[in-house]
Amino acid sequence: MPTLILVRHGQSQWNLENRFTGWWDVDLTEKGVAEATAAGELLAKKGVLPTVAFTSVQTRAIKTLHLALEACGRLWIPETKDWRLNERHYGGLTGLNKAETAEKHGEEQVKIWRRSFDTPPPPLDAGSEFDLGADARYAGIPIPNTESLKLTIERVLPYWESDILPVLASGETVMISAHGNSLRALVKHLSGIADADITELEIPTGEPIVYQFDDSMTPGERRYLKDT
Amino acid sequence: MPTLILVRHGQSQWNLENRFTGWWDVDLTEKGVAEATAAGELLAKKGVLPTVAFTSVQTRAIKTLHLALEACGRLWIPETKDWRLNERHYGGLTGLNKAETAEKHGEEQVKIWRRSFDTPPPPLDAGSEFDLGADARYAGIPIPNTESLKLTIERVLPYWESDILPVLASGETVMISAHGNSLRALVKHLSGIADADITELEIPTGEPIVYQFDDSMTPGERRYLKDT
Repeated sequence: MPTLILVRHGQSQWNLENRFTGWWDVDLTEKGVAEATAAGELLAKKGVLPTVAFTSVQTRAIKTLHLALEACGRLWIPETKDWRLNERHYGGLTGLNKAETAEKHGEEQVKIWRRSFDTPPPPLDAGSEFDLGADARYAGIPIPNTESLKLTIERVLPYWESDILPVLASGETVMISAHGNSLRALVKHLSGIADADITELEIPTGEPIVYQFDDSMTPGERRYLKDT
Repeated sequence: MPTLILVRHGQSQWNLENRFTGWWDVDLTEKGVAEATAAGELLAKKGVLPTVAFTSVQTRAIKTLHLALEACGRLWIPETKDWRLNERHYGGLTGLNKAETAEKHGEEQVKIWRRSFDTPPPPLDAGSEFDLGADARYAGIPIPNTESLKLTIERVLPYWESDILPVLASGETVMISAHGNSLRALVKHLSGIADADITELEIPTGEPIVYQFDDSMTPGERRYLKDT
């Protein structure tokens, strides 16, 4: 039976510092490393073992994948890294502390930027210290300068359809290690969540979400694997 | 210019214990982890940055790859894991201490098993504790029960030709993280080393070997990247 496992990366340094991160490449903290390992141990304990893996091209998701796979004895499965699973690009908010940004622009404006479905934050200035134009990892890729959740969905779902769904449909247990908003895109699609509701749905870090699919590739209920 | 980087995994627990390892899956020691990281730091320092990676399906090579890629800022490059890059299968010697084996069978016999080009060690008994028949990673794969270096070459080179060489020919800088004997297979082929000489060639652990290829895909001299 095709099975999908979604894992949001463990705590990153900028999660800890409460800064907008988006496409900026930030490493896991020690707590994040522990969360990733615990996710893999839980997969092993529950016998939900991935056979194929996908991740973004961002260090925190790749390392979460590797730590989780190692913890469940599956480091050897095929893995594919793709920018279309990256976090939502936070534009000009990248690098800013969330509390300071609220002080400067007001709570209400920041809430719109963070929680609106289709309003992107202001764009990142070209030449900003967070400009990724010179990063070899994004050579040839249309790097956004800001993204709403809607824009994020518009790059995640075509990749899901073209690259992940066919693998899942062949009967594999697919694990995706990614980010709060790229995973929201998938959960919205699979669980049929309305535009107005999806931005309030929190994807917990390091806690596997499992969907099983029937023969017609219709996903069942969203299930949170937890250590009870 | 197409560039090939070969890295032999860092010290494993059974390297440390002086046991025949082969296809048995043994983790890196702390020293092995440090060697892998140092290999990546050296690649960064010398500006030889991989753009595509290949590894075996064995933990010690996969982790060496990940540690080295992280250390040179390239964790995001595509990676492919394939059993044909695995270490030579040591058959019935798997798990045995090399000194004890020499006491039991004589230095001369062990030297033949270790250093002969085409004499495989005695086969692994089916049902032995080191039988990999039930390991999901080898489902559908023709698991050998012993291999000479010659037999190892006979599975490494077809994979090199079919899967690695075309990627290299497209201009990539390809990194292969693998094992003493699967890398001997490649070095023998690329440097034109005779059957009688190759088994004496030591591939150093965690020390990148670099080949550059010309337009006709002829490899140049074998070069050891060293921190001088």
